[in-house]
Amino acid sequence: MESFRVELGRDSHPVHTGAGIIDQVGELAREAGLKLGRAALITDTNVARLYGERAEQTLRAAGFAPVVIEFPAGEASKSITALSSLYDRLVEAQLDRASTIFALGGGVTGDLAGFAAATFLRGIALVQIPTTLVAQVDSALGGKTGINHPAAKNLIGAFYQPRMIAADVAALQSLPEREFREGLGEVIKYAAIMDAPMVAELERAMPAILQREPAQLEAIVSQSLRHKANIVQSDEHEGGLRKILNFGHTLGHALEVSAGYGSLLHGEAVAIGMVAAARLSQTQAALSEAEAQRLTGLIEAAGLPVAMPAGVRVSDLMRALKLDKKRANGGVEFVLIDRLGHAFTRRLSFEQVLESLPLA
Amino acid sequence: MESFRVELGRDSHPVHTGAGIIDQVGELAREAGLKLGRAALITDTNVARLYGERAEQTLRAAGFAPVVIEFPAGEASKSITALSSLYDRLVEAQLDRASTIFALGGGVTGDLAGFAAATFLRGIALVQIPTTLVAQVDSALGGKTGINHPAAKNLIGAFYQPRMIAADVAALQSLPEREFREGLGEVIKYAAIMDAPMVAELERAMPAILQREPAQLEAIVSQSLRHKANIVQSDEHEGGLRKILNFGHTLGHALEVSAGYGSLLHGEAVAIGMVAAARLSQTQAALSEAEAQRLTGLIEAAGLPVAMPAGVRVSDLMRALKLDKKRANGGVEFVLIDRLGHAFTRRLSFEQVLESLPLA
Repeated sequence: MESFRVELGRDSHPVHTGAGIIDQVGELAREAGLKLGRAALITDTNVARLYGERAEQTLRAAGFAPVVIEFPAGEASKSITALSSLYDRLVEAQLDRASTIFALGGGVTGDLAGFAAATFLRGIALVQIPTTLVAQVDSALGGKTGINHPAAKNLIGAFYQPRMIAADVAALQSLPEREFREGLGEVIKYAAIMDAPMVAELERAMPAILQREPAQLEAIVSQSLRHKANIVQSDEHEGGLRKILNFGHTLGHALEVSAGYGSLLHGEAVAIGMVAAARLSQTQAALSEAEAQRLTGLIEAAGLPVAMPAGVRVSDLMRALKLDKKRANGGVEFVLIDRLGHAFTRRLSFEQVLESLPLA
Repeated sequence: MESFRVELGRDSHPVHTGAGIIDQVGELAREAGLKLGRAALITDTNVARLYGERAEQTLRAAGFAPVVIEFPAGEASKSITALSSLYDRLVEAQLDRASTIFALGGGVTGDLAGFAAATFLRGIALVQIPTTLVAQVDSALGGKTGINHPAAKNLIGAFYQPRMIAADVAALQSLPEREFREGLGEVIKYAAIMDAPMVAELERAMPAILQREPAQLEAIVSQSLRHKANIVQSDEHEGGLRKILNFGHTLGHALEVSAGYGSLLHGEAVAIGMVAAARLSQTQAALSEAEAQRLTGLIEAAGLPVAMPAGVRVSDLMRALKLDKKRANGGVEFVLIDRLGHAFTRRLSFEQVLESLPLA
């Protein structure tokens, strides 16, 4: 197990990565100072079947008394309706201010349960136990929680830091291939925006990563978490530096919306968004053709899409872009790289962004 | 106009009190550094009729472009349904991260619009323009926002500080008598828990206060706001000292619920709660009979109830108490005073609390 702390003053908390650590979550949570007793273990129907019992057991063994709350797996559960039903069940479970919510699952679980923790009784303790690659390398760390609105993804939410994160990389062995690959998009992102040597490492190790060799998984997860922690530590609320984490995401989110939530996975949309961002980085910044191709090649090697899917209407994409949270007073704040491993933001017009679309 | 700053580090913000200052809100907001342009003015149907136009005008004059969003007046609007419809309208209004929500109205408006501001796009700027006495002396300051759940008041919410507060005491002239008096309950609370000389001042000035003499109103509002600011500054998230602000509230909230939301006004329930707390302070702390009677007398002089209303069932009250946010691991954290002007918290059993009920 590898551990480090995200340093955020009063909101500092430990992050643990390792194979099989799901069975230590109870003990780790106790060591992190979480109050024993009443708790909720929130998870979706799929993850409950795979890891629910083990998670419940480790919590009980440590002295927590978790009520297990399951919700239907899928992005559709990031809705105000699902949230409302979650509140009802937290009330039923008689959680109080000293209670902890354990969020066991992928990004949807972390976002939904995290937002419930942020807003139930004006905020109760939260522990993230991410089980997908996307959640482990990205969404579990940084305090972003929230739900979707028909008009835009994550439109409703809060910044709310967990009290602990425990990423069990063994859980990645059970991921469907497509979901595993989408997580690699986020891993590649860290390399592209802040770690040039990591680009080379990923190029070299991609076959072993795709084989899900445990040592490789632990390496990419802990490396990604440390990169994200470094950024979040210097800009918790996305006022500046943190925005570079949106590399590939501005267009990615708009693509997800206009393709219809769920037809493109988040990481797939981000992959296409990164290809577009690399193109824009060539015309708007100093990125060389060779570097842009290296990045596109790495995305392709991870089995991710590098061109727009058929059937997405540019007018839908434009509308989605205009609703994006990163929009402010017209135009859009876009993340570019001037070389592999170095990113910055620049305000671009909607037209400039649309011109970069990598049509198939 | 009297002004001071609530010092909360990055969340510090100005507080203005004065007669007629609603017409200066636009200018004051600009001076406070709020971004001009797109904004939302959220208010209920009653307040819109009285002050909507003036508020809209001052905002436009200063360079804001407010969309006015009205919702039905009343506690019923602090629901997840009303919140959901509010999100829809914020989306329609195309608010972005640089936009400000102006909450114009009483406690319901401040809580609902405040929670929307806290959670829309993970938090946008908020300005509180309280128009009732309860909102001016209590709820607008301190960052508590939220909505109700059928099981308990304010069960869903967030701590979220406004960027400015502007309390126009002239608005208090239009308040129905009962609503004006309920606000006096909160004013009396500050005196009881932290300002013994203020008890004597209120005893002396009560007839003039009940006449709503402008100078008296400005005095009690600004004095109350400063008292609350002092407490919130040293304990923003209610970890310790801030709990003394719950004097009379633990039982008050439970009474509101068990009498049925709306049949007792918040301040009326708190008034009865303070009488009960004074009794408990005699048996559990060193409060003298004479001081307890002085406090009860002041509450009565303000025209507030000092005994339990008919028809409230103790079993309902007990259930509501057990759901209270201030409950933690059995028992309830209760605020007592050992003399007028000095409060502290102590854990009491539910039975001890129930024994204190001032039956009519």
